[in-house]
Amino acid sequence: MRGAVLHGPRDVRIDDRPDPRIIEPTDAVIRLSATCICGSDLWPYRGFNAVGEPSPMGHEYCGIVEDVGRTVTSIKPGQFVIGSFAASDNTCPHCRAGYHTSCEHRQWVVGAQAPFLRVPMADGTLVATQELPSSNQVPNFLAVSDVLGTGWFAADAANVKPGSTVVVVGDGAVGLLGVLSAKQMGAERIIAMSRHYARQTLAREFGATDIVTERGDDGVERVKELTKGIGADSVLECVGTQESMTQAIHATRPGGSTSYVGVPHGVELDGTKLFYTHVHLHGGPAPVRRYLPELIRLVQDGAINPGKVFDLELPLDHAAEGYRAMDERRAIKTLLRP
Amino acid sequence: MRGAVLHGPRDVRIDDRPDPRIIEPTDAVIRLSATCICGSDLWPYRGFNAVGEPSPMGHEYCGIVEDVGRTVTSIKPGQFVIGSFAASDNTCPHCRAGYHTSCEHRQWVVGAQAPFLRVPMADGTLVATQELPSSNQVPNFLAVSDVLGTGWFAADAANVKPGSTVVVVGDGAVGLLGVLSAKQMGAERIIAMSRHYARQTLAREFGATDIVTERGDDGVERVKELTKGIGADSVLECVGTQESMTQAIHATRPGGSTSYVGVPHGVELDGTKLFYTHVHLHGGPAPVRRYLPELIRLVQDGAINPGKVFDLELPLDHAAEGYRAMDERRAIKTLLRP
Repeated sequence: MRGAVLHGPRDVRIDDRPDPRIIEPTDAVIRLSATCICGSDLWPYRGFNAVGEPSPMGHEYCGIVEDVGRTVTSIKPGQFVIGSFAASDNTCPHCRAGYHTSCEHRQWVVGAQAPFLRVPMADGTLVATQELPSSNQVPNFLAVSDVLGTGWFAADAANVKPGSTVVVVGDGAVGLLGVLSAKQMGAERIIAMSRHYARQTLAREFGATDIVTERGDDGVERVKELTKGIGADSVLECVGTQESMTQAIHATRPGGSTSYVGVPHGVELDGTKLFYTHVHLHGGPAPVRRYLPELIRLVQDGAINPGKVFDLELPLDHAAEGYRAMDERRAIKTLLRP
Repeated sequence: MRGAVLHGPRDVRIDDRPDPRIIEPTDAVIRLSATCICGSDLWPYRGFNAVGEPSPMGHEYCGIVEDVGRTVTSIKPGQFVIGSFAASDNTCPHCRAGYHTSCEHRQWVVGAQAPFLRVPMADGTLVATQELPSSNQVPNFLAVSDVLGTGWFAADAANVKPGSTVVVVGDGAVGLLGVLSAKQMGAERIIAMSRHYARQTLAREFGATDIVTERGDDGVERVKELTKGIGADSVLECVGTQESMTQAIHATRPGGSTSYVGVPHGVELDGTKLFYTHVHLHGGPAPVRRYLPELIRLVQDGAINPGKVFDLELPLDHAAEGYRAMDERRAIKTLLRP
């Protein structure tokens, strides 16, 4: 089959790759209905993470089950399924506690920017929809696989409750879906930090009540002005840089919560400074599997349309252009049709 | 009056100091029944924090109200009161959220190692007991003022619940009272990390079910062995060093909680490493005022005896010996009688 492979900084190619097949009896193979490019794919694309040998790309996926191993019981060929970027057994103590991305048998999914994908531990990883979705619904289900699940975890980890005042740092797809998630959880006020018109517009559509264009200390100052000097109850850090993390922590009220879901790059926290902020800090790779049943239901019911973050749709063969568009911030998120 | 004053590293003297008096109409002056030396006093005593000019020491206190300013309404002369090391108004948004140590008008209490103390914002800071306590009860109430309140916050911030598995890092008075607090909150298993016999004994008396003597990675390994490889639900970091913080975070299960209540000294957290631990992190200067009514009630009812952490009692004039004994770990905590 043909799949996207990163050969070096800004060098994504469509190469011939082996067709996925069942290796373990717990595997499934899926024919992907759609896949996409993640903000986290841009770190190696931009050369921040070293790329040794050519790396198959992609970890967001949904599609039709093609084949399953002999011990798989919960899904069957022909069903439409969604999984997370981390395969998990869903039975170990960490999964039972809801932290599937710390599963004792966790495997990171790779190579999803392709027509087919092997998913390990299919029973623990995949969740099937009740019916086959319409073509219009596919982007919504694809978003559930990672970017909505991550935004949802950001809001949950930041303890968003009905009536909360929330700040979202980062106007990428995760941040925008953090806005949507906070809205679903009943936040009263949602302040999106963005200086990009199209993203501001989508943030408002998803539920943002205020937009702050300032950054760093000025951004914190503006949040304080909007919250009577108190700070926000919940701040979602959806970028992963030192500046965004500092901004998020300082925009949080004492006793409030800062979540962080973007893989940190070069972030250092000074223990003494953190101590006096009095914030709750929680984050990590989002345990999307925990939320799949609920998020699938919300999409099925038409309550949310997270697929709106896909503002560019390309055939898989044009993946390189999809990366370029996201790298240059011309696109929020690129959907690829295999 | 006579009071303890730090002149430089390991140089505590009893000096003549001005008698405290009402300055603001919201003040109270207290005649102290007892005071004590805090683990945090040892940082400047040991020279880790620079001491500029001679500094009156002490911030833990309880005693009889001697005088109040004209606007004070909630306490009156003759009552026995307990306050926190941070004076707070108890009305600002941060106090109402339970974070009195981030009060908009916070003032750190200093100079409590003396016979008398001026307490600002008396209505917001002090809580009176129903009756005058017996002499035996005074150490218990004194402990409430800081060291129990801090251990209690550590357990609360680490989300200790009935049935929890808890680890306490640090066998100082705060750590030991963290054990007591976890027990009160219903923890099923409490692992105290200590290599000091007298402290292990008190930890067991307060509710510890297991003692781990190893430190650092070995200590984490031992906790993992005791918890079937999972880690603890809640870990209380009661020291404030890089080693203790790292140990605490690594002993916590993914999705579990690490609290930290010792003022961090030289602690740096690597954002990427923290990300993959999946822990909840919360701490800061303990908002003891939040817990005073509950802790006073527990002492009044005889449910707890936190004053057992005072294993050395000296007249105030011998404060220097009290510091030496704690510095050399001959004493867990020194009570001073003014």
